[in-house]
Amino acid sequence: MPAVLGTSRLEAFSDGVLAIIITIMVLELRAPEDTSLVALRPLIPVFASYILSFVYIGIYWNNHHHMLHVTPRIEGGVLWANLHLLFWLSLVPFVTAWMGEHHFAAAPTATYGFVLLMAAIAYWILQRRIITVQGSDSLLARAIGRDLKGKISPVLYIIAIPTAFVNRWISGALYVSVALIWLVPDRRIERALVERDG
Amino acid sequence: MPAVLGTSRLEAFSDGVLAIIITIMVLELRAPEDTSLVALRPLIPVFASYILSFVYIGIYWNNHHHMLHVTPRIEGGVLWANLHLLFWLSLVPFVTAWMGEHHFAAAPTATYGFVLLMAAIAYWILQRRIITVQGSDSLLARAIGRDLKGKISPVLYIIAIPTAFVNRWISGALYVSVALIWLVPDRRIERALVERDG
Amino acid sequence: MPAVLGTSRLEAFSDGVLAIIITIMVLELRAPEDTSLVALRPLIPVFASYILSFVYIGIYWNNHHHMLHVTPRIEGGVLWANLHLLFWLSLVPFVTAWMGEHHFAAAPTATYGFVLLMAAIAYWILQRRIITVQGSDSLLARAIGRDLKGKISPVLYIIAIPTAFVNRWISGALYVSVALIWLVPDRRIERALVERDG
Amino acid sequence: MPAVLGTSRLEAFSDGVLAIIITIMVLELRAPEDTSLVALRPLIPVFASYILSFVYIGIYWNNHHHMLHVTPRIEGGVLWANLHLLFWLSLVPFVTAWMGEHHFAAAPTATYGFVLLMAAIAYWILQRRIITVQGSDSLLARAIGRDLKGKISPVLYIIAIPTAFVNRWISGALYVSVALIWLVPDRRIERALVERDG
Repeated sequence: MPAVLGTSRLEAFSDGVLAIIITIMVLELRAPEDTSLVALRPLIPVFASYILSFVYIGIYWNNHHHMLHVTPRIEGGVLWANLHLLFWLSLVPFVTAWMGEHHFAAAPTATYGFVLLMAAIAYWILQRRIITVQGSDSLLARAIGRDLKGKISPVLYIIAIPTAFVNRWISGALYVSVALIWLVPDRRIERALVERDG
Repeated sequence: MPAVLGTSRLEAFSDGVLAIIITIMVLELRAPEDTSLVALRPLIPVFASYILSFVYIGIYWNNHHHMLHVTPRIEGGVLWANLHLLFWLSLVPFVTAWMGEHHFAAAPTATYGFVLLMAAIAYWILQRRIITVQGSDSLLARAIGRDLKGKISPVLYIIAIPTAFVNRWISGALYVSVALIWLVPDRRIERALVERDG
Repeated sequence: MPAVLGTSRLEAFSDGVLAIIITIMVLELRAPEDTSLVALRPLIPVFASYILSFVYIGIYWNNHHHMLHVTPRIEGGVLWANLHLLFWLSLVPFVTAWMGEHHFAAAPTATYGFVLLMAAIAYWILQRRIITVQGSDSLLARAIGRDLKGKISPVLYIIAIPTAFVNRWISGALYVSVALIWLVPDRRIERALVERDG
Repeated sequence: MPAVLGTSRLEAFSDGVLAIIITIMVLELRAPEDTSLVALRPLIPVFASYILSFVYIGIYWNNHHHMLHVTPRIEGGVLWANLHLLFWLSLVPFVTAWMGEHHFAAAPTATYGFVLLMAAIAYWILQRRIITVQGSDSLLARAIGRDLKGKISPVLYIIAIPTAFVNRWISGALYVSVALIWLVPDRRIERALVERDG
């Protein structure tokens, strides 16, 4: 399979979509009718779900940035794997609004986890696709290694989805946990770059 | 006609517009008032039309990316041919919402096909314009070849538009068929690049 | 005055803002409640004002692209002159919606012209500022020449604004005329580039 | 701490988010139902708050542009410090709408100042982080110097926040003052560049 396209436009388009996703979520934070500080209180769950999703989209952008940074060339299949990832991430504002406006009710919270799960799978497919093009001894393949984080995250989502119908706070705590695991940016790639260069 | 402008800013602007088009469609997926999973059911046609349009915009971005990748320089007329394409694509969120919210009713489904038809014509004009600037023995001209896909697609749209008033599902199936035809990215251009380089 | 910054990020940010302006206008085209083709008829003035504004933003992007193409370096003042232009253009969706939804009523149509006038003045300031930095014998200064188009446009807007209260169609025709004058992209810059290179 | 990533994608993503923030604020300027010029009068406070926030986002973009211009390489921590800044700035449309729609009422005006304060702190953290990576004798560190503006601004916000509950116009005047202080772009960086090059 030929690898003939540069990554700059893939990155530019993904940056655009992710920038819009992260920003349109704030449209759900509608200005209260009232003018007292108390009027902000009902917005707290909407705000909490906004922060969670902002961090998630930030994590995806961050890891996407690191992954593409060590990817010199791609081919058509990678473009579609990337669009597939953006598709699931584009649903994040929808599930964020549903979950936030209904105070982390069971079904919205489970659906939120489902979208996160599908995005995680889509990211994994994209990563596999890029490694296939680059070769298994590529910088990316070595940096990813056994990909422990990438394997634990979907497991935690799969636990969180049915749990939402039992106790929504456990699900919420699981989503926060996965975010915390990833909040540390993908040092693996930076380390691999330093090893290569030094 | 002088070809004096690089393509980077044309690509950046198009990426921006396409990224916004693909993302604002999700604003039509409004969070349900209810919190049961059943509340998602009325959203299914909206969701189906969103997926269809997401794939279409993805196809346009993909082909646009491939086409501009083999286009070193352009002139002013190409900028306008490109804006003309973006104009018709900018109407996709509107027709997607109209079709989705009304369960693929006849007139919205026909109008959807009309916008797709105009976008296909606009893409063809842009392609012709670029080939005129590059010359008929350019990489792009050879890669496009007889452009079978580009010729079949408008024919299928023209069939689908009146058919919507007879049986909307046939029209829908035709739109899905055209998408499937194009879902395979434009390997012609990648092949031409490999031939040139190898 | 030192000219120490490249133009790439100015162009990227402007592309982003212009791409969003051109695309959010389509959000005013709300999907009709009804599903007959007749339901599109009340949208015709909204649609007409959308086309007009799309062409205007396209013209600004086009000319901005040409101008920056022959501008190698800028300084801080140019960034602000550019933001000033983007400010007036950011009001285009607002006046487009007001004019379109009220069938080109007098006050909205006059306000539309006022925003176009301010954008034209802002573009002229930006152009002067760039020429000041580049020098009066720069490629841009020579390409612009006597800037006939740039001088006629504000005059036509100034005529169109009060005329809207007498006959709205004359104002509309004047806006369309200015757009047609500019629709031909700034060949002056392309010509100047060809002269320099050939 | 390794500094292994270029800044181009950080800049592109930030440009995207800032472009969207600056543009979606205009969605709050809803077209009046009435068609007289008088119908624009109730929009004046919304419009005033839009101008203020447009200038603020413009200032952040401008300073961000200058700062990254003298930052050759970054590491993962900078990406997160940047996302943290974008998070607070993403709340600007929300507080702008709340403050504008309620004619600069006390609580919205105080909340507006709180978001500006957090954004200023986030900018300071980002700046410190970049200087840590670059070294204290870097171009940026020398250009920033004692950072008088950066120290005065939060102090003025901290005064403005409680003052909003006493006299909203003093708070508003303080926000305008901080904007005016910064409206002069960061000449320090341009000066440092000229010194280095000349």
